[in-house]
Amino acid sequence: MANLRLSVDTYWTSPYAFSAFVALKEKGHPFSVHPVALHLGEHKHPDALAASLTGRVPVLWHDGWALSESSAIDEYLDDAFAPPGYPRLFPEDARERARARQLMAWVRSDLMPIRLERPTTTLFYENMDVQPLSTAAQGSAARLLGVADALIASGRTTLFASFCIADADFALMLLRLLWNAHPAPKKVQAYVEAQWARPSVRAWVEQKRPPYVPY
Amino acid sequence: MANLRLSVDTYWTSPYAFSAFVALKEKGHPFSVHPVALHLGEHKHPDALAASLTGRVPVLWHDGWALSESSAIDEYLDDAFAPPGYPRLFPEDARERARARQLMAWVRSDLMPIRLERPTTTLFYENMDVQPLSTAAQGSAARLLGVADALIASGRTTLFASFCIADADFALMLLRLLWNAHPAPKKVQAYVEAQWARPSVRAWVEQKRPPYVPY
Repeated sequence: MANLRLSVDTYWTSPYAFSAFVALKEKGHPFSVHPVALHLGEHKHPDALAASLTGRVPVLWHDGWALSESSAIDEYLDDAFAPPGYPRLFPEDARERARARQLMAWVRSDLMPIRLERPTTTLFYENMDVQPLSTAAQGSAARLLGVADALIASGRTTLFASFCIADADFALMLLRLLWNAHPAPKKVQAYVEAQWARPSVRAWVEQKRPPYVPY
Repeated sequence: MANLRLSVDTYWTSPYAFSAFVALKEKGHPFSVHPVALHLGEHKHPDALAASLTGRVPVLWHDGWALSESSAIDEYLDDAFAPPGYPRLFPEDARERARARQLMAWVRSDLMPIRLERPTTTLFYENMDVQPLSTAAQGSAARLLGVADALIASGRTTLFASFCIADADFALMLLRLLWNAHPAPKKVQAYVEAQWARPSVRAWVEQKRPPYVPY
């Protein structure tokens, strides 16, 4: 049986570790979790660097072979643990798969003002202080909600006919706004709520976390 | 016959448009190019936004269907124009494919000091002014060259047995250092030079460009 291990940040706040964790949970294959103390620089230890190459979290180990970058991990899990034994993480249709990859690449490389002003600590820890969005962040928020409006069909709580890993990533990005009192259309709220109720997502959200110390 | 169109930045400096352009050239299918004047905000025009969703360049149109995010475009081209009629852009082996995706995700989401202090204008325009690397950029450069040293085998000018699209992306990132007088091991220099001599890459490099106006 395959031996799977995932490194995550000690505080369980990394949106990238979140994605890979949810992907593993969706596959339903047992795996162990290795918390890494980013605030102590554990990801820069020579052994960690040799595995991740890039010094980042998460890292997936599969029978001793290591891979970093959450989107690559999600794709690898879909390649290595494929139907019929395992559910898909990416849509079967090529254009839906492309759209999922587009969204995942976008939330990883754009919208920086939202990521800075609405960090994931505001989702996973109580009473985190936030300020009103800057003008730049308001612009990012308008773009993010515009994309959500274009891609989320009314009455549907997944982007496509069934769940894909881009749903989890997209919901987390939207939640940075929604849980910090930013207005959003009802269909976007329903989409995010449904994603946040998913068992694979709950398993991440409900982790017991150490007290958060800013670093 | 499929109708393919790619939007690129007017100055032909976007590393993301570069990746999608090289991918299309490698596939060998004819395509047209649509330059977008980012400095005039053309990517924010409502029609452009409706196609790209995210307001970014490049955008691929395939028979009227539009997709943005270069890594998603590269993947889509591999799905839609597959062997035996077309060459692969990503390795066939699942772990090599994962490593290629890891590298592509990494150069798109990290190494920001290099991207800022060694912009691609220094590769595609003459006499661009550069300053010595900041301490942060020196750290990024050391990490980048460390990964290159780990992944480029001596005597080989591709990451894997044959070319993949991650080679082009990785070579461009390395070239930001090498063409700005940063020392690098001989095998890394040979790798970058071989990639830069590739016909699909030359087609991008040798484009006639308008005079560059900073914006």
